Amino acid sequence: MYTNIMSLSIKAWAASAQGSHLEQASFPRNNLHSHELLIEVSACGICHSDIHLIDNDWKISKYPLAPGHEIIGRIVEKGKQVPEHFKIGSIVGVGWQRSACHRCLECLSNRDQMCDKIKATCVGHPGGFADYHVTDWQYSFLIPENLQVPQTAPLLCGGITVFSPLQMLVPQGGQRVGIVGLGGLGHFAVKFAKAKGYEVTVFTSSESKKTEAKKLGATHVVSSTNPKEIKAMGPYLDFMLVTANVDLPWEAYLQALQVDGVLCFVGIPPNNLSINVGSLLGKRRKITASPIGSRYQIQEMLEFCSHHQITAQAEIFSMDKANEALLRVRENLVRYRAVLVHSSLDGLLN
Amino acid sequence: MYTNIMSLSIKAWAASAQGSHLEQASFPRNNLHSHELLIEVSACGICHSDIHLIDNDWKISKYPLAPGHEIIGRIVEKGKQVPEHFKIGSIVGVGWQRSACHRCLECLSNRDQMCDKIKATCVGHPGGFADYHVTDWQYSFLIPENLQVPQTAPLLCGGITVFSPLQMLVPQGGQRVGIVGLGGLGHFAVKFAKAKGYEVTVFTSSESKKTEAKKLGATHVVSSTNPKEIKAMGPYLDFMLVTANVDLPWEAYLQALQVDGVLCFVGIPPNNLSINVGSLLGKRRKITASPIGSRYQIQEMLEFCSHHQITAQAEIFSMDKANEALLRVRENLVRYRAVLVHSSLDGLLN
Repeated sequence: MYTNIMSLSIKAWAASAQGSHLEQASFPRNNLHSHELLIEVSACGICHSDIHLIDNDWKISKYPLAPGHEIIGRIVEKGKQVPEHFKIGSIVGVGWQRSACHRCLECLSNRDQMCDKIKATCVGHPGGFADYHVTDWQYSFLIPENLQVPQTAPLLCGGITVFSPLQMLVPQGGQRVGIVGLGGLGHFAVKFAKAKGYEVTVFTSSESKKTEAKKLGATHVVSSTNPKEIKAMGPYLDFMLVTANVDLPWEAYLQALQVDGVLCFVGIPPNNLSINVGSLLGKRRKITASPIGSRYQIQEMLEFCSHHQITAQAEIFSMDKANEALLRVRENLVRYRAVLVHSSLDGLLN
Repeated sequence: MYTNIMSLSIKAWAASAQGSHLEQASFPRNNLHSHELLIEVSACGICHSDIHLIDNDWKISKYPLAPGHEIIGRIVEKGKQVPEHFKIGSIVGVGWQRSACHRCLECLSNRDQMCDKIKATCVGHPGGFADYHVTDWQYSFLIPENLQVPQTAPLLCGGITVFSPLQMLVPQGGQRVGIVGLGGLGHFAVKFAKAKGYEVTVFTSSESKKTEAKKLGATHVVSSTNPKEIKAMGPYLDFMLVTANVDLPWEAYLQALQVDGVLCFVGIPPNNLSINVGSLLGKRRKITASPIGSRYQIQEMLEFCSHHQITAQAEIFSMDKANEALLRVRENLVRYRAVLVHSSLDGLLN
């Protein structure tokens, strides 16, 4: 094990102010704490949350801000208390969450993504649009050999955000799953739901995505904005996962759910939902929402994806094209996730 | 077994028009079908749904309308296909539901209260404010010996409506239950939750009910209308059962729920809920609603109540005081359920 041979700074692409273009910036880093890993970044996905951070939409951003929380890279240094199975040279992934308290009821019950002490990978720390990344081993995940490609990076946030509710919140025995929106999250959700053997219905407003949805494995494709068409489905679906952060005719969506069906959000629509309890009561329908996923679920997802050979359908950009890639994400042009890579993808298949 | 010795008419207290006082009326009845029971009514609870029916609030009422769907009585005649364990003289109970298709997925999966073919006891048939009642044996329930009292009648609708969600919808391992509203349904919910070993919090706006809630077994009592007081509870509760059909500060109620907490309605508030998905997402909270209960759950409830000696805290009126009793129900004066009885309570303890 070698220590402190690296420069004690991190070079990252960072926004110097709210909404600004990214520029190369240097961030100081301390010697590793005993529980930390130094990761040489190979690839980093771009998530819509990165744009919210750059734009300070959540009023939590500090500048200069280096985004990126869908990281794949190689361990190049490790703290003294990092367990044995993380080896120098191991390929690991890092997602939105960088730490938790490890002692509250949520941490003790596979719900650590809801720990009150959660810290985010790229809030107050430089994220993955960088040459190196320092993080806690407890939120680093060994990447199975057949997933050591840039297209795996988006699993760490976009993937787990839809994998977690598909694992936890589909009613027992449910078979018919609807995916609302076909973007970074939605396309993972279709792949996961299909691999789990569900009959998949995709709701989208894009004509071209209707065709793509079928290619990804959807059995039915329905307009996401036409209440009549949506209602006409029901009562049918067991579970609907809303991956589109827009206002849609929610009352019609509820009508598409069968008895005990669940409408689950993984993002927050611009406006409040207006819900007639009568639409829930007769069929005991449920509305819920789910944040990212737990450590355990990220492990589960990586095993699942290794078995089913699932990675993102991604557009690959070299790291110095970060601004171009961000623009495509802002304009919703990417099919379905942008991933930044370093020109030398040493150790990662491509 | 004796057949057809009874007069082929039913004398009931009925509304001749929308919102009218009840008067004695005679309803024809046919010979029993092979699956039917003729029940001599001993007692019948008054549910708010009876008032909605009298007032035609749901636009399904037909006049003359004899309300009553919390019935306890004695079997005096039975059809040829009624099973052996229903004997002449057996004491049975009847609730809101009088039939289902017995073949759909809901009927086959302990969710028959959500069968599309559900028929109601007192819609299109004279209900329990009557001397006799004809119904399907499949929705008649043998009453355990120690529950053969008028106070058991309200279990058949008011009781099961809160028992069902407390059985099915409390998160596994949940311990802290909130009951919103302390009326006919709410007081049953407190008794059930207490008997199940939950820590119970009652939300009420009535000062006198705050004291009564503690007597019924509540550990905490909170104002149901003060958002600050409600929010200050949270994140704490695993499950909240809303038994009050009024508009309340729902956003504050959500904040009182801990991770995976459920806000469950058993009635429909006058106005739509306005829900910020952000209040669900961070703690994966759920909103749902639940209608009455299944045949299986009614059996479960009767066993549970027999074991725990639970019946309604009721005000007893003789059947010919139906209008007085209804007025007290309309004015929310009853603590906590009104039950009409025939002057001769032959065979029922009192």
